[in-house]
Amino acid sequence: MAGSSEPTRVMVAVNESSIKGYPHPSISCRAAFDWMLSKLVRSNTGGFHLLFLHVQVPDEDGFDDMDSIYASPADFQSMKQRDKIRGLHLLEYFVNQCHQMEIKCEAWIKQGDPKEVICSEVKRVQPDLLVVGSRGLGPFQRVFVGTVSEFCVKHADCPVITIKRKADEAPQDPVDD
Amino acid sequence: MAGSSEPTRVMVAVNESSIKGYPHPSISCRAAFDWMLSKLVRSNTGGFHLLFLHVQVPDEDGFDDMDSIYASPADFQSMKQRDKIRGLHLLEYFVNQCHQMEIKCEAWIKQGDPKEVICSEVKRVQPDLLVVGSRGLGPFQRVFVGTVSEFCVKHADCPVITIKRKADEAPQDPVDD
Repeated sequence: MAGSSEPTRVMVAVNESSIKGYPHPSISCRAAFDWMLSKLVRSNTGGFHLLFLHVQVPDEDGFDDMDSIYASPADFQSMKQRDKIRGLHLLEYFVNQCHQMEIKCEAWIKQGDPKEVICSEVKRVQPDLLVVGSRGLGPFQRVFVGTVSEFCVKHADCPVITIKRKADEAPQDPVDD
Repeated sequence: MAGSSEPTRVMVAVNESSIKGYPHPSISCRAAFDWMLSKLVRSNTGGFHLLFLHVQVPDEDGFDDMDSIYASPADFQSMKQRDKIRGLHLLEYFVNQCHQMEIKCEAWIKQGDPKEVICSEVKRVQPDLLVVGSRGLGPFQRVFVGTVSEFCVKHADCPVITIKRKADEAPQDPVDD
């Protein structure tokens, strides 16, 4: 064990907060990241390699632009460009933190349905562990919003750890994150 | 993070193999233990404190004694004594391994329904993480045998990691473990 050479590869699914206008990490993915650092990585920063995956939902991101008028292909181009910048800004938060702690990491963006894309990326990248945050919604709320974490626990091809958001961090509407 | 003082407390649910007559650890709980050591604890043996919980199912253990005749209270006493010895033998396997690797650990036995007892022990002991092995049964087999791991993922009051048994380790009857 002391001689284990390859670092443990942990994929962390990260997403934007639904609360603020600017691309901050969601409360639950930040909680999952912090938990992983303090409880698993600990001082053993050389033993882990973190893989940050951000899945952008094309339609959902479009909602921010409800007031805009798209009159030309260039408008869509600039929207896509803006999405990309938002995604990069989000990943920057995590990559910067890793850099400060000298933890090796990679980060990338994919488009699509988060739960499907996370599971297909697990298949492709084959991490040792997948970490996902969860809003910890009750059964009634879950029916309406669905939960990415439950899907991943069932379908991802690697061990999955779900970190529930702490009750005192939950916003007024628990569906927000 | 480098200064995190308290070790990460990981509860590991362990059980006997259903295959062999003597109390060996089940394939799935041994797989979960090995995975945790190689992927999470790694060389950071001082950073983790392992808590081994073995839940004995009183009725199930009794099946070994189908041919016996219980004629007196003393017969039940000796059966209980034998159960206890089997349980201790199982825990000894894990405690010995930890001792060799200089990982701090504790181990204890409880009686009852494993899924209920594991969750109530999580409430009482408040570990940072619960690790459970899983036979990785298909949906059809699950209906009949139930799965402890699914219940714990839903109901335990701490993050849970389920380690699926590898396909090449599965016995002829996948319900065996």
